[in-house]
Formats: sequence, structure tokens, C-alpha cells
Amino acid sequence: MRPFNAVVLSLLATAVMVPGSASADDQDTIDYRQHIMKTMGELTAALGQILQQKVVVAPEAFVSHAETLAITAKMAKSAFQPKVLGGESKPEVWASWADFAKRLDELVVYTDAVASAAKSGGAAAAGPKLNDAHVCKDCHDHYRQKK
Amino acid sequence: MRPFNAVVLSLLATAVMVPGSASADDQDTIDYRQHIMKTMGELTAALGQILQQKVVVAPEAFVSHAETLAITAKMAKSAFQPKVLGGESKPEVWASWADFAKRLDELVVYTDAVASAAKSGGAAAAGPKLNDAHVCKDCHDHYRQKK
Repeated sequence: MRPFNAVVLSLLATAVMVPGSASADDQDTIDYRQHIMKTMGELTAALGQILQQKVVVAPEAFVSHAETLAITAKMAKSAFQPKVLGGESKPEVWASWADFAKRLDELVVYTDAVASAAKSGGAAAAGPKLNDAHVCKDCHDHYRQKK
Repeated sequence: MRPFNAVVLSLLATAVMVPGSASADDQDTIDYRQHIMKTMGELTAALGQILQQKVVVAPEAFVSHAETLAITAKMAKSAFQPKVLGGESKPEVWASWADFAKRLDELVVYTDAVASAAKSGGAAAAGPKLNDAHVCKDCHDHYRQKK
């Protein structure tokens, strides 16, 4: 982790480099929701590595990653609530807000189920649920701009 | 999040592109610890944005980010335990393992203190603790390879 001065400088640098209509404040909003989504991306990748037996970790690490994923998923909807176009979000996020919000509610239910399964039955129980991750892919297919 | 097939393909692609002596298995080990560190990086950046009032979120979001940071910090030491050089780690991580491990133990104490302060007193209480993040910077200065 970088000290906050560095974080802030880097956020400002990013804001300056972004072309188009996003103001510095708007870029902060975009950055914040990207921090949430990237946190979930990193945790999902870690869970995937464990499930694929690419790495061997203590069972509690798997549970821990699944729990932090579930906690972070609960933050996603409010992070997207401000209507700020840009980043990797398609405009449809806000044009079809009711559908998008419903999908993020489903993500919360889904990641809670994965975390519960991990807690009660470890990777063996959570793996099949996690592998059936169409809730992620479907939403990305609809609402995420390909870079 | 990407489906696991995509994650695995991307991990393999990364492994193929890495020059030098890291094998595919070694690259998995490097990728895993990077997922842990990047999770912490994203969460710290989110906390920093809230403290700097770059974004306005519900108080429970701040607590949630601080708690997930503290949970993730507990996974860091074991993620670095396998002696696999590469990524952004300097060889000193393993050459001075006792010191490095002690610093990661301090990270756990530090992030737990931040999470406790966040829970009891919100951003106002946790902010000063988090801003005094020399535990992160000092360790990076010693053990992180500049990209």
C-alpha cells in the first residue's frame, strides 16, 4: 500500500490524464467503484487459484477470501449509484438502473451463498457454487465496456 | 469478475509472458500473493478516498473496507512463505524472512487497530491511524521492487 499522499497524487494524475467530460470529482467516483470491483476481481482470482489447486493454502484462507468477497459485494450497488458515465461502465448501467441494481442484489445473495458454503464445507462445498459464476459474467456482458 | 476459465487462461498467459526462471507453478505462487497485496491496495485506496472526502459513502462502507483490509492482511504472511523470487518482491523478503515476517505481523496489528477504530468511531477515529501508515511504506521501501 502506498501512503495516502501517494494515493492522492496518483488519483489526481489519473484524473488529469482522462480525456473527455469526466471532471476530477467524477473521476473520483469512477475510481471508487473501480476499487470495489477490482477488490472483488482480485479475491475471485485468488479463490479460483485455490479451487484450481494452483496454490495450496490453509483452509481458513479460502473461507477468508470468500467472506471478504461477500462483504465487498454489498458495497457495489451504492458505489454505482452516482450517475457518472465512464470507466468501464456502459451507459446502460444507469439507463437500465433497475435491472443493473437487481443484478448487484443477486451478486450479494450469490457471494453470501458462496461464503456460507465455504464456512460450512470449505472449498469442496463452495467450489461448485463459485464455478457457476454466471451472475458475474452475465452482468459484465451487459454492462461492462470492453477496454 | 471473470469466469474461472478466463481467469485460468489469463493466469497461463501471464505465466507464459514472464521471462526468466519462474516456472508456471512459481508464477501461480507469485500471482496469488499479488492478489492478496492488490486486494489490500484497492481497499486502502478506497479508504483513502473516503478520508480525503473524494467520495461520500455510508459510514458502514468505511467500516466494511477497514474490516476486509484487516481480514486480508492476515493472509499476507502465508502467501509470501513459499520462497519464490519474482514479481515485485526483492530477494530480501526471504533472505531477511524473520524481519519481513515481523513486519507482516505488525501489519495485522495495525489493520486490526484501524478496523476497531472504524467500528467504534468511524472515519474520524480511524483516519489518523490510517494516515500514519508507515508500516506499509517502510516495508515497501525495504522489500518491494520498484516496477
